[in-house]
Amino acid sequence: MSTKPILYISRHAHFNAAHKLFNSNFDEKWNDETFGPCANKNWHGHNFELIVTVKGSPNPDTGFVMDLKVLSKIIKEEVTEVLDHKNLNLDVPALKDVLPSIEHIVIFIWGQIKVHLPEGVELHKIHLRETNNNFVEYYG
Amino acid sequence: MSTKPILYISRHAHFNAAHKLFNSNFDEKWNDETFGPCANKNWHGHNFELIVTVKGSPNPDTGFVMDLKVLSKIIKEEVTEVLDHKNLNLDVPALKDVLPSIEHIVIFIWGQIKVHLPEGVELHKIHLRETNNNFVEYYG
Amino acid sequence: MSTKPILYISRHAHFNAAHKLFNSNFDEKWNDETFGPCANKNWHGHNFELIVTVKGSPNPDTGFVMDLKVLSKIIKEEVTEVLDHKNLNLDVPALKDVLPSIEHIVIFIWGQIKVHLPEGVELHKIHLRETNNNFVEYYG
Amino acid sequence: MSTKPILYISRHAHFNAAHKLFNSNFDEKWNDETFGPCANKNWHGHNFELIVTVKGSPNPDTGFVMDLKVLSKIIKEEVTEVLDHKNLNLDVPALKDVLPSIEHIVIFIWGQIKVHLPEGVELHKIHLRETNNNFVEYYG
Amino acid sequence: MSTKPILYISRHAHFNAAHKLFNSNFDEKWNDETFGPCANKNWHGHNFELIVTVKGSPNPDTGFVMDLKVLSKIIKEEVTEVLDHKNLNLDVPALKDVLPSIEHIVIFIWGQIKVHLPEGVELHKIHLRETNNNFVEYYG
Amino acid sequence: MSTKPILYISRHAHFNAAHKLFNSNFDEKWNDETFGPCANKNWHGHNFELIVTVKGSPNPDTGFVMDLKVLSKIIKEEVTEVLDHKNLNLDVPALKDVLPSIEHIVIFIWGQIKVHLPEGVELHKIHLRETNNNFVEYYG
Repeated sequence: MSTKPILYISRHAHFNAAHKLFNSNFDEKWNDETFGPCANKNWHGHNFELIVTVKGSPNPDTGFVMDLKVLSKIIKEEVTEVLDHKNLNLDVPALKDVLPSIEHIVIFIWGQIKVHLPEGVELHKIHLRETNNNFVEYYG
Repeated sequence: MSTKPILYISRHAHFNAAHKLFNSNFDEKWNDETFGPCANKNWHGHNFELIVTVKGSPNPDTGFVMDLKVLSKIIKEEVTEVLDHKNLNLDVPALKDVLPSIEHIVIFIWGQIKVHLPEGVELHKIHLRETNNNFVEYYG
Repeated sequence: MSTKPILYISRHAHFNAAHKLFNSNFDEKWNDETFGPCANKNWHGHNFELIVTVKGSPNPDTGFVMDLKVLSKIIKEEVTEVLDHKNLNLDVPALKDVLPSIEHIVIFIWGQIKVHLPEGVELHKIHLRETNNNFVEYYG
Repeated sequence: MSTKPILYISRHAHFNAAHKLFNSNFDEKWNDETFGPCANKNWHGHNFELIVTVKGSPNPDTGFVMDLKVLSKIIKEEVTEVLDHKNLNLDVPALKDVLPSIEHIVIFIWGQIKVHLPEGVELHKIHLRETNNNFVEYYG
Repeated sequence: MSTKPILYISRHAHFNAAHKLFNSNFDEKWNDETFGPCANKNWHGHNFELIVTVKGSPNPDTGFVMDLKVLSKIIKEEVTEVLDHKNLNLDVPALKDVLPSIEHIVIFIWGQIKVHLPEGVELHKIHLRETNNNFVEYYG
Repeated sequence: MSTKPILYISRHAHFNAAHKLFNSNFDEKWNDETFGPCANKNWHGHNFELIVTVKGSPNPDTGFVMDLKVLSKIIKEEVTEVLDHKNLNLDVPALKDVLPSIEHIVIFIWGQIKVHLPEGVELHKIHLRETNNNFVEYYG
């Protein structure tokens, strides 16, 4: 008896947003020393590049682990429309009390996607790139 | 006593092919609803980008986990010459009864490479990118 | 008296299509020798990457040479919806008697875009990439 | 008598900034209709990618059109330190009355670089990419 | 009781170096047959691209798994300043008796980074790309 | 009477080489001050990325400005086999008395390609990238 193959399928998306790194439990000096120019009170921003990876076995009728049109729709409704062209500190109610480092944003995105996946498919990884020089990955 | 280090070494390749997603066990309406424009009976195509990753320990004489010229030759003979500038539904005997989703193609590529690797090296991952927006990975 | 600055603004798009290079005025032998595997009668395909560049001066009210939403809509309606997931030899009436080399496709795209641009903006360049290794550019 | 060869040498840089597109001579409705989500009053942002191209002939002693360390220093002092991690609407005195579309930013960058180039070298082009999908070029 | 989330954060760097693959325990013929043009006694070189990945949980005050300025400084002092614009066979005392294949270089980089990471953060992966066609990964 | 369209078609290639920037008409101090780490007497190296652009009109029988297999062969024989895995200061007779800055290399490549192009096609541009941060272009 053979077991079903497990595959990992990934979809790219992106969003452009403003944010600042500033912890209001500390004074301006601490924030400047800790976050440098990322603490600029007038904000800065990024083109965030997102890769969502799900795992599962291909459906014998379609050959798909998951219909990527469905995955794209989930990413659009739960992530892109929530974060794109937004201020991550001000415009996203669910991030209201969250310091918007990419670590915290990636955990937020994991929660947004995970609950909407269809049965038989598991969320495997969220990859979020902030600049050409750094990115973060989260496996839940 | 020290154990030998395990490294993962990867080689890129690419091929350009035509395919369509169409399951002849179902009617045209089902196929159109399921696969959308990918079901176009006149085919469409892609530049497929492939990354083959093998694992092993460096040979003390060469510093190589595996001679990449040998790996390139295997990829060329077993994958590129078989799939490049081909119609994946019509031209590849081994894919004759396979719906050529990237999930199924990646499983086929795994089988093509695995049996030809030299002793001491293990196939670790096949990564296959279909477009700038999606790719699939398989670990066997 | 200062003249208005001229700027060149570019928009990316992409489409995936099948094609073959085959000239029916010649026999199969000539086609195989001339086009090699690109003449495969069962087609092959590519992810085509398109960059459309227009030139003009920024509108003083908007700062825009041209509203990129308008340019995107033209590209979508006149190019992407016409070519994406299509067979360039069979599915595109306007290319019916055209050998679909990238040279001929880029001339076709130029004609599709040029007539739809708003007043005050000029089409400058169509850039079409067929693979990681080759691309073509046309200035009209 | 041979003429000296003319070469074009280019240097990449990047900066991350927040901005919004909003023209205060018009009401909010006009701005929303014209700029869409780019008018978000709480800002959004981008990773801007810059390529500065200069032209000239190689110095016979160095083989350089221009010492790229000098060009990098000019870009850093006149562009990156002025725009990186800034709010382009609020933080840059020279852009105070400028709607910060990429068209206007690229004209600003041209002026910043041009006057600082050493003798014998001419500024040829400023290329500024705002997202994976759009970029602007300016030749002065 | 919830456990702390584990995240993987990565930083890019690069260095340009010369090397040759030549094992002096063997004769020239063996080296030519084994390493081909990589054995050229007059050297060749590469732009090496490095990605360092560390794992840990975000600090509640900063949202950071690790301050990337600190990670960049470690990479610069322990890797870039040691390898950039160097001959990997001649200029790096620690690589004196090491055949500089990318497998051996990546193990060297692992050792350089690992001991300098702050408490609470673990080195997860070193990724080193030698050309567009091949890269190696090491997990210690 | 219509004129024939002019198109620009480009082909990528790459080579890996070692070099140093050192002018023996000057002393070591001048070289170190002028070229910095690029003057390292033990060499450093790069992955050079080359784009060759030719211009012409499509042949009515083939749709090609130029057969890219022919262009690839010229690039391979005249550039890649001459420069790949070589030391640009020592191994290339034609560069013997040339300081191998990318400016000088690009002029050399222009000469290598130009004389071998078939009738009806003109060499338009040589583009040579030395690192992610800089490249040079030459139009003859």
